[in-house]
Amino acid sequence: MSGWLKIVGLGPGADTMITPEVSAALANATDVVGYIPYVNRVAARPGLVRHRSDNREEIHRAEHALQLALAGHRVVVVSSGDPGVFAMASAVFEALEAGDARWCDLEIQVLPGISAMLAASARAGAPLGHDFCCINLSDNLKPWQVIEKRLRLAAEADFAMAFYNPRSKARPSGFGRTLDVLRDVCEPGRLMIFARAVSTPEETIRVTTLAEAEPEMADMRTLVIVGSQSTRLIEREAGPLVYTPRSVVS
Amino acid sequence: MSGWLKIVGLGPGADTMITPEVSAALANATDVVGYIPYVNRVAARPGLVRHRSDNREEIHRAEHALQLALAGHRVVVVSSGDPGVFAMASAVFEALEAGDARWCDLEIQVLPGISAMLAASARAGAPLGHDFCCINLSDNLKPWQVIEKRLRLAAEADFAMAFYNPRSKARPSGFGRTLDVLRDVCEPGRLMIFARAVSTPEETIRVTTLAEAEPEMADMRTLVIVGSQSTRLIEREAGPLVYTPRSVVS
Repeated sequence: MSGWLKIVGLGPGADTMITPEVSAALANATDVVGYIPYVNRVAARPGLVRHRSDNREEIHRAEHALQLALAGHRVVVVSSGDPGVFAMASAVFEALEAGDARWCDLEIQVLPGISAMLAASARAGAPLGHDFCCINLSDNLKPWQVIEKRLRLAAEADFAMAFYNPRSKARPSGFGRTLDVLRDVCEPGRLMIFARAVSTPEETIRVTTLAEAEPEMADMRTLVIVGSQSTRLIEREAGPLVYTPRSVVS
Repeated sequence: MSGWLKIVGLGPGADTMITPEVSAALANATDVVGYIPYVNRVAARPGLVRHRSDNREEIHRAEHALQLALAGHRVVVVSSGDPGVFAMASAVFEALEAGDARWCDLEIQVLPGISAMLAASARAGAPLGHDFCCINLSDNLKPWQVIEKRLRLAAEADFAMAFYNPRSKARPSGFGRTLDVLRDVCEPGRLMIFARAVSTPEETIRVTTLAEAEPEMADMRTLVIVGSQSTRLIEREAGPLVYTPRSVVS
């Protein structure tokens, strides 16, 4: 029996956001590989080996998954959200390009998932309803200068912005610097959304402004959205809606 | 019985990419509202009225959906892909803000879907695996000058880019202008992907470079991706993989 590798997205948390094609891949797998909390979302069953690894071990994890597939296993690499957005798909292809030449002949598929940014956007309304960008705020794998340059240019382009990995215990100060840059180039009333643990029991959605935003509003489970100049707030008894209109007036 | 409105994403085309929460909403609906080909994707059944409207009638369609919900119907507004990315969610909120005050008291939810850009990215590998932006190339609702400015700033920021609505019969020349701007600011070997009708029987994925790209490679069913300076190509017998690594070297 020949092996294969599927790199799949589990969505932001709720099982009801996992696509049927991802569920089918998991049902046919012999091995699931991923970061500990994501593998834990896949139920144990006879015939399935669950390989859990720690954060920041992405390349080793990717190599292990490719080795298993080459040995004939049916391997699913799991990411939260979408596997192609700051997740395992790029790590697997980095490992593939640098590693065993036979890995290139494997059957490999990426199965998309509901990304954290689009789940967060949906919960708040439609803040990413017009042109937007998506930036990973972690400076583990790129210099802070690149992040700052991209923030300034994104503001100049008047993109709405979605931020991944805004803040962690190892990087407590980066998000404060991000807010400083935004305050330098955007008006104080710019709408912001802090969406934490979307679609899980711990979900919180906080709508605020750049003037009121504080670094402590974000942690590693928070997806941060910054509106464009056009982004609007609708106040309702049931809670605010934030959306970006389809038109831009020059 | 009180009405509700759910604005949902059907994903790019395949039923296996529709999330269970969207399927459940459709199963509980009395009315489905949307653009003709998207409503046609929802199977007819007793008790379900399917309201089809033409392109460019988004606000009228949104008002109709809100009226039905206010009258007690259980209404699903369908978009292709994700409803929050250049789709019906923003149109519904524009109508809500401008319309009948009672609409604000309705139960309204946005249910995310697999977006065209992430489905296209998955098919090609992981070209959006690092910082990226997403631009609607239609100048129906914004001036071309805004599009050109955003393209130039996105290139300067070295974002990968995903383009929606690159070209239509009514706008045959816009995508050629987009290529001209990109050629002005990016190197000729910049990787590009033309992903058409992803996950449908008509799917085609074409990987090329900016130098080789031609306007005729895109139509309204095409999602175009432009890599960043870091985006890489892996040649394989099974077809090329395009991915953007997780690291940026300054």
